[in-house]
Amino acid sequence: MNSSPSRAAIGVFDSGFGGLTVLKELVALIPSADYLYFGDTARLPYGSKSVETVGRYAVEATHFLEQQGANLLVIACNTATALALDQIKRAAHVPVIGVVEPGAEQASSASKNRRVVVIGTEATVSSHAYRKALEQRGMAAREKACPLLVPLVEEGWVEHPVTEQVAGIYLQDAFGDGFQGADVLVLGCTHYPLIKPLLRRVAPAHVSIVDSAHSTAKAVAGKVGDFYKALDRRGQPTLKFFATDSVEKFRRMGPNFLGHPVNSVEHVDLKE
Amino acid sequence: MNSSPSRAAIGVFDSGFGGLTVLKELVALIPSADYLYFGDTARLPYGSKSVETVGRYAVEATHFLEQQGANLLVIACNTATALALDQIKRAAHVPVIGVVEPGAEQASSASKNRRVVVIGTEATVSSHAYRKALEQRGMAAREKACPLLVPLVEEGWVEHPVTEQVAGIYLQDAFGDGFQGADVLVLGCTHYPLIKPLLRRVAPAHVSIVDSAHSTAKAVAGKVGDFYKALDRRGQPTLKFFATDSVEKFRRMGPNFLGHPVNSVEHVDLKE
Repeated sequence: MNSSPSRAAIGVFDSGFGGLTVLKELVALIPSADYLYFGDTARLPYGSKSVETVGRYAVEATHFLEQQGANLLVIACNTATALALDQIKRAAHVPVIGVVEPGAEQASSASKNRRVVVIGTEATVSSHAYRKALEQRGMAAREKACPLLVPLVEEGWVEHPVTEQVAGIYLQDAFGDGFQGADVLVLGCTHYPLIKPLLRRVAPAHVSIVDSAHSTAKAVAGKVGDFYKALDRRGQPTLKFFATDSVEKFRRMGPNFLGHPVNSVEHVDLKE
Repeated sequence: MNSSPSRAAIGVFDSGFGGLTVLKELVALIPSADYLYFGDTARLPYGSKSVETVGRYAVEATHFLEQQGANLLVIACNTATALALDQIKRAAHVPVIGVVEPGAEQASSASKNRRVVVIGTEATVSSHAYRKALEQRGMAAREKACPLLVPLVEEGWVEHPVTEQVAGIYLQDAFGDGFQGADVLVLGCTHYPLIKPLLRRVAPAHVSIVDSAHSTAKAVAGKVGDFYKALDRRGQPTLKFFATDSVEKFRRMGPNFLGHPVNSVEHVDLKE
């Protein structure tokens, strides 16, 4: 990595492709940085795995990105943040930002009724990381696991009637029974920004949608501003990708999440 | 493992829970055996991973089951069989049976029109293992990837209208455009036996369903008969389970696939 002190080398970590929605927001907000994206595609999804397993994987990814020269780490994976942020912070030698706190903070700004619904993977929901972060800000939270939404997004059915039906079933459940008054929906999974227009149609009309990918990019921009006073905001980004499974698949799937072509992907085997 | 020469110690390997449908059939056909089931739940699903990654995981599982005393190995995972059976056979010191050949053999017996549809994961379909096995038997095959069916089964929606709709979309595609005459549907994924009644309703009426879990158990029964002449068919099975992710989750999910409680689960970390 050629990172001069005036440029941030931002390591972005996810279990797979979802974190590319965070990277997309980061590049838009902080164009003058070097980005190192690590997708642990051989071991995805994290969303159905235990805290011990996710913690171990996340720490390995942390060390890898530091070795590659990252001087700031973004955990662009709700599951890894929810289950292992403290563990990652202990293992890392550079500042670490996860997706949960920025999402909770933005939900707090957006909610008048102080009642919020969070949707995410099974593991994110079971950890209650969002509920804790929202309760600390004086809000009541209902967390709803939506395990079918990631596979539907990965199937490319982002505007499909089946996806709309499944999302409708999940959200009806989440906003029912005492939570009709909730006025914010937090997208607690980095795959969900791809179905934001569909979720907008399915969610109750009075509800604001908080996209944790976007909230996180804003938080990182603040942090980068603190750390790199001489930051050159006119520069161009460089992007480098690492994947633990097939490079070809990463090149094929990546653009759906990032919004433009994914070049320069390198295969990494964390076992070696 | 206490395996006397008159009892088979059958190692059954899958990426997760699906292989339990094969184990269920095995126990029904060969009750007088010791079973060692290994579910690589920390690294599931294999269905979306590359041949190199799946091959490496499968060889690790093979060595583990041999160390535990298995004297016969069943690869109860279509993806691992399709991508890595030869590699597993080279690595193993005991006989190995996969799920693809028995399924193809039964399809051959069942098909009059010599046209067969196979449904499975993305990786199984991309490998064309079923097409090769069916073409060797003089049949034309269409392979259709159905990546949403595993998550729908794992969500427990085995009789849900959404699952019926998704299966309908996949099968309409598979049996259309030149394959209307296909008269066999091969369930090329060990999760699919759980939605066999639903698939029966959705598939064209003239189509026979071949369940590769059942076909494989029959093939193993033949093999065990060859290897253990003194086999005591009146004995009771013993079952021992190993999982690379949460033991608690294995106990909770397992019974849906096995049809009865899952006790004696041990956590295994293949990295150590």
